[in-house]
Amino acid sequence: MKAILKETAGPGFVMKEVPKPEKLGPREVLVKIRRASICGTDVHIYKWDEWSQSRINPPLIVGHEMAGEVVAIGDAVTQVKVGDLVSAETHIPCEHCVQCKTGRMHVCKNLEILGVDRNGVFTEYAVIPETVLWRFSKEIPLDYASVMEPFGNAIHTALVTDLTGKKVLITGAGPIGLMAIQVAKASGASLVITSEVDPNRIQMAKENGADIVINPAEQDLVKSIYTITDDGVDILLEMSGNKKALEDGLKCVTMGGEASLLGIFGGSIDINLDSLVIMRGITIYGITGRKMFDTWKVADELLKSKKVDLSKVVTHVLPFEDWEKGFELMLNKQCGKVVLNLD
Amino acid sequence: MKAILKETAGPGFVMKEVPKPEKLGPREVLVKIRRASICGTDVHIYKWDEWSQSRINPPLIVGHEMAGEVVAIGDAVTQVKVGDLVSAETHIPCEHCVQCKTGRMHVCKNLEILGVDRNGVFTEYAVIPETVLWRFSKEIPLDYASVMEPFGNAIHTALVTDLTGKKVLITGAGPIGLMAIQVAKASGASLVITSEVDPNRIQMAKENGADIVINPAEQDLVKSIYTITDDGVDILLEMSGNKKALEDGLKCVTMGGEASLLGIFGGSIDINLDSLVIMRGITIYGITGRKMFDTWKVADELLKSKKVDLSKVVTHVLPFEDWEKGFELMLNKQCGKVVLNLD
Amino acid sequence: MKAILKETAGPGFVMKEVPKPEKLGPREVLVKIRRASICGTDVHIYKWDEWSQSRINPPLIVGHEMAGEVVAIGDAVTQVKVGDLVSAETHIPCEHCVQCKTGRMHVCKNLEILGVDRNGVFTEYAVIPETVLWRFSKEIPLDYASVMEPFGNAIHTALVTDLTGKKVLITGAGPIGLMAIQVAKASGASLVITSEVDPNRIQMAKENGADIVINPAEQDLVKSIYTITDDGVDILLEMSGNKKALEDGLKCVTMGGEASLLGIFGGSIDINLDSLVIMRGITIYGITGRKMFDTWKVADELLKSKKVDLSKVVTHVLPFEDWEKGFELMLNKQCGKVVLNLD
Amino acid sequence: MKAILKETAGPGFVMKEVPKPEKLGPREVLVKIRRASICGTDVHIYKWDEWSQSRINPPLIVGHEMAGEVVAIGDAVTQVKVGDLVSAETHIPCEHCVQCKTGRMHVCKNLEILGVDRNGVFTEYAVIPETVLWRFSKEIPLDYASVMEPFGNAIHTALVTDLTGKKVLITGAGPIGLMAIQVAKASGASLVITSEVDPNRIQMAKENGADIVINPAEQDLVKSIYTITDDGVDILLEMSGNKKALEDGLKCVTMGGEASLLGIFGGSIDINLDSLVIMRGITIYGITGRKMFDTWKVADELLKSKKVDLSKVVTHVLPFEDWEKGFELMLNKQCGKVVLNLD
Repeated sequence: MKAILKETAGPGFVMKEVPKPEKLGPREVLVKIRRASICGTDVHIYKWDEWSQSRINPPLIVGHEMAGEVVAIGDAVTQVKVGDLVSAETHIPCEHCVQCKTGRMHVCKNLEILGVDRNGVFTEYAVIPETVLWRFSKEIPLDYASVMEPFGNAIHTALVTDLTGKKVLITGAGPIGLMAIQVAKASGASLVITSEVDPNRIQMAKENGADIVINPAEQDLVKSIYTITDDGVDILLEMSGNKKALEDGLKCVTMGGEASLLGIFGGSIDINLDSLVIMRGITIYGITGRKMFDTWKVADELLKSKKVDLSKVVTHVLPFEDWEKGFELMLNKQCGKVVLNLD
Repeated sequence: MKAILKETAGPGFVMKEVPKPEKLGPREVLVKIRRASICGTDVHIYKWDEWSQSRINPPLIVGHEMAGEVVAIGDAVTQVKVGDLVSAETHIPCEHCVQCKTGRMHVCKNLEILGVDRNGVFTEYAVIPETVLWRFSKEIPLDYASVMEPFGNAIHTALVTDLTGKKVLITGAGPIGLMAIQVAKASGASLVITSEVDPNRIQMAKENGADIVINPAEQDLVKSIYTITDDGVDILLEMSGNKKALEDGLKCVTMGGEASLLGIFGGSIDINLDSLVIMRGITIYGITGRKMFDTWKVADELLKSKKVDLSKVVTHVLPFEDWEKGFELMLNKQCGKVVLNLD
Repeated sequence: MKAILKETAGPGFVMKEVPKPEKLGPREVLVKIRRASICGTDVHIYKWDEWSQSRINPPLIVGHEMAGEVVAIGDAVTQVKVGDLVSAETHIPCEHCVQCKTGRMHVCKNLEILGVDRNGVFTEYAVIPETVLWRFSKEIPLDYASVMEPFGNAIHTALVTDLTGKKVLITGAGPIGLMAIQVAKASGASLVITSEVDPNRIQMAKENGADIVINPAEQDLVKSIYTITDDGVDILLEMSGNKKALEDGLKCVTMGGEASLLGIFGGSIDINLDSLVIMRGITIYGITGRKMFDTWKVADELLKSKKVDLSKVVTHVLPFEDWEKGFELMLNKQCGKVVLNLD
Repeated sequence: MKAILKETAGPGFVMKEVPKPEKLGPREVLVKIRRASICGTDVHIYKWDEWSQSRINPPLIVGHEMAGEVVAIGDAVTQVKVGDLVSAETHIPCEHCVQCKTGRMHVCKNLEILGVDRNGVFTEYAVIPETVLWRFSKEIPLDYASVMEPFGNAIHTALVTDLTGKKVLITGAGPIGLMAIQVAKASGASLVITSEVDPNRIQMAKENGADIVINPAEQDLVKSIYTITDDGVDILLEMSGNKKALEDGLKCVTMGGEASLLGIFGGSIDINLDSLVIMRGITIYGITGRKMFDTWKVADELLKSKKVDLSKVVTHVLPFEDWEKGFELMLNKQCGKVVLNLD
């Protein structure tokens, strides 16, 4: 079967033939991959950045976002059956640490990540533990099912609190930011403001329903927000990983409000917690992964009911063989989500 | 000034001239009423039912839902100023019981109700404590501001939990049920099912956005719900005060789900809490009034942002003088909300 | 090996030799039982009451509360290893329904109960799925580990809300009520009042730390509570399954308070939800099972840290062979928890 | 009457005669001060540090913690009456901003602080708005009622989550840290670890019930915590305002855990939110003031029921005239809380 591999330590990937997996562990499932989508993490591994060098052991089949079909199951599998359409949580929990035992598998102490710590899904058939499979509703198109994992990030970040009647600021309109705009609107937010500097993404933010898009390179974000709203926003969804966005975003949050942080800043940052967080009574949520599977259930319902429409987020669906074009689009940020079609 | 009065113990109201209030207590506010709307409670008092006979001391100016303008304020008033447009919470809290001191004024131990325990708002000028006034956003039409109080009941009942991606059953499509349909849809519910027997209300439920309306006189509610959904609904909003609706509604709630009860059953009912509530791990919220003023803030945001559109709920706006026609409509249930215009 | 069996449809149990289990499914675990304790449910099955007749298929090894040691594991087991000391959640979830997938296994749609729907633990070796095993802390004595399951009911019921500084009423001082007294005290409740009619249990309630015990056969419960407290109690823990206790208990709850219901009423009851629940803004939690395994984690911590001391609840530890004496004690209510020692 | 004043811009205070307040606004209350206690903020103002210079306008009667008796009330006062024993929330809210109207007065946009922005309580009679008065239970000694305000800080910080069965790390054992130790123990925490460098405070931490006290100057805090606990602590209560304490404290929090920050760091700090907060799914609560009056209600219940005993926190009660000795003790940190007795 064909697979996209990080074959050796160094930049780039190759597509090549690898043996189809044959033996399944008792709780493993063989999934025929039908769609797979490219994540920013895949791009990091492609570029072979510092983080990748420290974490990835080639040769490795990369990729973790996917929609596929169950074609074989291990002896002890009970949660899925052959023929089920599935997407996968990419964070594989141990099931026995205290986090796993108390309903917080997404912060498992012994997490392994698909396509990072073990072979991934940019291939025709992948072996995946039953624990992380999600049987998505048949009404959901495969292209969208493939991006349920990053969509889950948007949901996990946005729904730390009930957004009904709330004013929301989303800093950063990459693919997850775009999905968060839709989630916030669908969840009853009365005003969704997005800050973004890239003209292409500004355009996509508007198309995905942001009420207002502010370019902080052109306008003072804090001043703008307090001109638009009397009291600031109720919640900040930080999705840029940009220090200035975090600082200004926190200043925009009303006294006693909330901030949900998904973006990664790439190291330490200098920040005044006294004035930005403590003395203003702000709550900050560090967000990682997706709640298993509360977040996936919400994702499924929002897609199935068409409360969220990902047609403006999934900008490209390419044949599997054109994967290099997909990575080019990602490298140039000329896209939302790029989906590879393996059918 | 003109006022609608329960003049003597017995059915009916009269409209007559009464003296305009002159003296304001230090924290009282004189409000020029511009819109007032008719509540089911007003109809009970009109009919002079058992409850009214035990609670109402004529002569009394009736009515409690309104939108108006502040025209004078007492010496110690700080929360509103002359010229402010206001609606009013009708439950007047004492401000000193433990409930009031700990953010639960809506369940004040010493509650007084406007138009029930003291003179109400079906008149040209009303004296109202500053504590219960809500300065609504100027974008909200007066007709809708007048019904913010019952709209608040819909919000308080619906938003006991985050509805994003949830399946909701609303039993009863009276005016508050209709508003709850819209609130649930606006708040991210993935499926809103309504049960109702009255053909007129069935039609209004559809117009207000219910995904499915079931007439339990024609179809078995429980069987229908489990045909439509695999697992039942996540939450029941009980707005009918009908015992059978409660029982069947609870059966429709998924294991571990929730039920929010606003409808009043008119006395004791025979119910199996073992099988309907305890062994299924259901949480039940008894709902009274509106959170002061969390609920009002959400109401304001939903109306201001047009996430909710009350044009299909406010079916009649009549001149103040035509109040008798309004009560007729209410008595015959040939309406949603009826608003009286005093401008 | 020896086991206590419901051998045929009819009252009573027998102890007899049965074959030791040999084959384990891939996720099954063989547990050498070291302690087992008697639950009210076991007594129902012993008496062969209506519920038992409809649910139990003899022959069946009964019993579900236990502490034991893992002596063999199936091929796919990862959550425990040979030598682990374990207690067991007795509600066996399917792991694939929506409840199981979203962190609510205790309300699994396809629940099976140990010792009820499949062979139980009143025997020397029992086969138990790894999913329900809890490795308890080594500091916890076996006698107490055996009763972690009913202790978990007390915790699940009591901790629906933070009890710090709260006034708590517990109606019913059976073994779970006694444990709830201790849980409430340990969790910061400022006043724990218990209502109970049985003199023996009244005594035990005091010994387990109830601040006040009221005998509702001698004193008016509602009047007493409002004499003791100005505003009633913040939360009712209903553990009697008695209709009058529920009604009076709800009357004792302060406006906007909470009630957590564990007791089973044995069928429908006539109750005024209007005045007791809805118009007072009360929240009611139907409690079943234990959260898996949040509740168990708390149970473990409370026992390990000695914040709760079960020495006054576990009133009898008998040799396994004296099981009939244990059932006699239970039938006569002359005991707290009765533990059978199989060592 | 006598009062302690910041008379002019510069270090120190003076005690001198000032006129007794005569006129009360309609919602103002005249309180005869019976106890007043010294806060760290008072010491800042005494020292005339940078913050004080920017905020304080002499002449000003300083002090904000107190217990006293109502001796006169304004015309519109309804919440207290003459003879009531009261303590006071020192953050005076405006009552009309969106925070105040929605139950979050402690983060009022227009907050004024007693003894900082207006005359305080280090005097015989103080004028205080009824809004901030708390009628404490008569069982509470005046000495402890005086420190309910900082005790409320401890409660507000500690009770962001239910602590039953939780492991808690408190960094910093100043007076509020000491009280937090007691609150955590009383609320069901299974293990309370405190980190502190000062030998006197280490001793006091032990006396107030800390299970373990670690001196981070002598032992590696992170290593110690993970030796004592398998998984780290469930929650960090940061009360030192020390950057290293925050960083190490966050490292000690288990995956998905929580941190409640009360300590002020005195400006920006360099911190790795990626690894400490976001990728570990940590929630951070910025804490300011006390919830009005939920926190006060808990404070009252804990003191009234003797679940918390402040005798080891209130280390000195001095006659009002000996205030200078009190400030000396505070400057040298040779004390817990210092209370001035005006009786």
